[in-house]
Amino acid sequence: MSFKDATLSEVDSAVQEAHVAFLSYKNFSGKKKAAFLRAVADEIEGLGDELVKTAMSETNLPEARIIGERGRTTGHCRMFADYIEEGSWVEARVDTAIPDRTPAPKPDIRKKLVALGPVVVFGAANFPLAYSTAGGDTASALAAGCPVIIKAHPAHAKTSELVAKAIFKAMQTSGMPKGVFQHLHGAGFEVGQALVKHPRVKAVGFTGSFAGGKALFDLANQREVPIPVFAEMSSINPVVLLPESLEKNAKGTAALLAGSITLGVGQFCTNPGLILAVEGKGLEQFITELSSEISKAVPGLMLHEGIAANYVKKMAEALAQKGVKLEVQAATESSKGDKNQGRPTVASAPAAEFLKNPSLAEEVFGPFSLIIRCKDMTELNSVVSHVHGQLTSSVIGEESEVSKHPSLLNILTEKAGRLIINGVPTGVEVCPSQNHGGPFPATTDSRFTAVGTDALKRFARPVSYQNFPDALLPDELKNGNPLGIWRIYNGDWKK
Amino acid sequence: MSFKDATLSEVDSAVQEAHVAFLSYKNFSGKKKAAFLRAVADEIEGLGDELVKTAMSETNLPEARIIGERGRTTGHCRMFADYIEEGSWVEARVDTAIPDRTPAPKPDIRKKLVALGPVVVFGAANFPLAYSTAGGDTASALAAGCPVIIKAHPAHAKTSELVAKAIFKAMQTSGMPKGVFQHLHGAGFEVGQALVKHPRVKAVGFTGSFAGGKALFDLANQREVPIPVFAEMSSINPVVLLPESLEKNAKGTAALLAGSITLGVGQFCTNPGLILAVEGKGLEQFITELSSEISKAVPGLMLHEGIAANYVKKMAEALAQKGVKLEVQAATESSKGDKNQGRPTVASAPAAEFLKNPSLAEEVFGPFSLIIRCKDMTELNSVVSHVHGQLTSSVIGEESEVSKHPSLLNILTEKAGRLIINGVPTGVEVCPSQNHGGPFPATTDSRFTAVGTDALKRFARPVSYQNFPDALLPDELKNGNPLGIWRIYNGDWKK
Repeated sequence: MSFKDATLSEVDSAVQEAHVAFLSYKNFSGKKKAAFLRAVADEIEGLGDELVKTAMSETNLPEARIIGERGRTTGHCRMFADYIEEGSWVEARVDTAIPDRTPAPKPDIRKKLVALGPVVVFGAANFPLAYSTAGGDTASALAAGCPVIIKAHPAHAKTSELVAKAIFKAMQTSGMPKGVFQHLHGAGFEVGQALVKHPRVKAVGFTGSFAGGKALFDLANQREVPIPVFAEMSSINPVVLLPESLEKNAKGTAALLAGSITLGVGQFCTNPGLILAVEGKGLEQFITELSSEISKAVPGLMLHEGIAANYVKKMAEALAQKGVKLEVQAATESSKGDKNQGRPTVASAPAAEFLKNPSLAEEVFGPFSLIIRCKDMTELNSVVSHVHGQLTSSVIGEESEVSKHPSLLNILTEKAGRLIINGVPTGVEVCPSQNHGGPFPATTDSRFTAVGTDALKRFARPVSYQNFPDALLPDELKNGNPLGIWRIYNGDWKK
Repeated sequence: MSFKDATLSEVDSAVQEAHVAFLSYKNFSGKKKAAFLRAVADEIEGLGDELVKTAMSETNLPEARIIGERGRTTGHCRMFADYIEEGSWVEARVDTAIPDRTPAPKPDIRKKLVALGPVVVFGAANFPLAYSTAGGDTASALAAGCPVIIKAHPAHAKTSELVAKAIFKAMQTSGMPKGVFQHLHGAGFEVGQALVKHPRVKAVGFTGSFAGGKALFDLANQREVPIPVFAEMSSINPVVLLPESLEKNAKGTAALLAGSITLGVGQFCTNPGLILAVEGKGLEQFITELSSEISKAVPGLMLHEGIAANYVKKMAEALAQKGVKLEVQAATESSKGDKNQGRPTVASAPAAEFLKNPSLAEEVFGPFSLIIRCKDMTELNSVVSHVHGQLTSSVIGEESEVSKHPSLLNILTEKAGRLIINGVPTGVEVCPSQNHGGPFPATTDSRFTAVGTDALKRFARPVSYQNFPDALLPDELKNGNPLGIWRIYNGDWKK
């Protein structure tokens, strides 16, 4: 079964319907939108085994991973449901009037976040469920009050179609207007481009390659009315191994890193692609231990042929660079007989070469990691200063050693959206404190997260209401605070 | 006295110094940054009469306005000082670890906002104090922890130089590192462009023309690493006069609007440039009353020759459009003998012409307002749907009549950052609930305000700290909450 690309007229109809739906959906109570999101979660669970099998067959991902991803998808739908039902996310501020203030009376002003408008979400190749049709972008946009138009990822179009069916069913059972959710196929660029250029579209969510994300970002900025694009694109997630701690625990550190490098065949945006360490006994032992772990690793199948071919090509390019030495590469499993096997691979290069050669800082999407051998901490700091914006930066070291290097943490903060001590970047917890984002080119907008409750702020903007009669105010701003939300009331936090 | 343009090498030095200062300044406590902002306010007051006289001579603005603007400038410096000293603005979220969670342990993650980096601020022609050298952009960026590089507005360069002197003095008395504030002159585009293109610059604040703001926005997006530009550009601030209420109070409404149109010679971004009403007795009486008020108005001098010439040109263009009828124009005062007089002017046009002619929706910067005569509320709603993004939208009408038109308010919300009932858009209160911003082209980013405490969020981004030992966490995220700020702690608001 394959799906026909949407025509340009179908794109237009979908967006126009989304706009009409927006004008009512945006005003729905948190409770009503929450019921819809919970129904989406229920209906996805209701798809049962068919969803798991379809996703497995389209992505090569194992059953446990798909089931885990389904849990994460229904989990974030329910998390956003709880969050908007509680309601404080609108950042309500109330400043009451002071009519007798001199020289001028102070008017009554109140403010809250409102929904941006129809949002286009591109399904992500590497997360057929959690970042696709009912993924984090969709759930957060719907939670904020924005209709969503999905451009299904062609590599898992059937999975996308199934999830869309579940969402359409949830719309019916929870009384949502037609157009709150739309699902379009498009194997080429045309459908996506038409969606991003449509005047009624107000924001875009994308997870994928740098080339793809940057193209959408540029397109959106060239519109007559530019719109925000939240693209998560490219990150090599540097991991700094502090020398004293490494010498004490080379073996444990190697096991930790090997697990993170090979997890999900390295197909995570948080894969540790760059390891920074100071030359010495600790590093040599670490490389020996890591090589031993990696050589034992069983190569998994990558998501699809295109991604596997790209991995082989990019890795070969990296290995061909001056100063780069292959440390270890896992053997393919001949029994699998599939050229899509992503072989875990670790190489190393001297810091001096890394500093001279920008291509070594580019992402190799897959289970590949490059160790940068630094002469000393000064050179390591130079390498850190040199890397681009990242989703994460990690430091492996004991507290006493980490605290000796305050400038290292200070610079790492400039480079990433999440800092980790004694841990690996893979594993993105879905919670209020999560920031899955980071300076360009990790994302196109470092001021927002794609994971966790704050993700819905991407799809909202503030509006002030001045001198409004109480009855005409949104409930969140009414005098009696009927929703019982947290507000800044005349300068103080109050419930 | 005139000032030499900064050379490109001076631009580079200024930004490099700002970057070095950033690496320490961003970590200063709220208390320390607050002391600096308060010192800035004190030093500006210490400039005394010299500042008032200089600003008056450079801008043609009257003494009371300059003194008022100075109060607003020192006021927002102190407001941001209080806000960051209190500290809850960093949106701290704490999620503690659950080591025994299955299937995977939950790590400890915490999040807060951090400063973006050096910010370039362009002085605004129409606010020599409140939106220029120590204006809202500067104060909010400094509050967030970002050094500021000012590109002084050439029309009030001496005023800018005086304020810069005050800030440099405040830096000394409050122990700020060199480079936290920089002041550059540039009469042409070269200095501004070099600043926006500099790799160490992380954001831009601008208030001025659409052409200027859009050019900076495009330049910033074309950088290798794009950066946000907060440009406040163009708004005609529609005011809807509801028919029944208008018939009851045409005179009062006319007096209210006349005051707003002529305030500050119409040189506010919130000037009511578009008035929408339904044809009938009420509207005719309103026009008669408004004409009477406007014809009595005394034209003030505009900021400088360029702005006055632009006003005359744009107004002539508007008046030359098909269907546009001049209703009233205040006479010049021959005793003033200055061609820079901005003559308050009101014209009208049928809705049908407005809907056909995009040029009628363009801003005429100055005391000009265009009344759109609508056949009925349906046509009025079409006009509202047709206007671009705005800073404000106002509705003048009794509560009972406003509540009869829910779709009007619903669409107005899509068009503006601030909605006003029974009030005029001029007069922008500085408070937590203020949103001075709006959909494009009013600003380049509708998700942020340029006025009020939330303005500092423009210059911050979130960072998560995963698995950090308590001692290595920023104070805002430490277990004991030593700063006593509001945080979301395991999902609940707590202090």
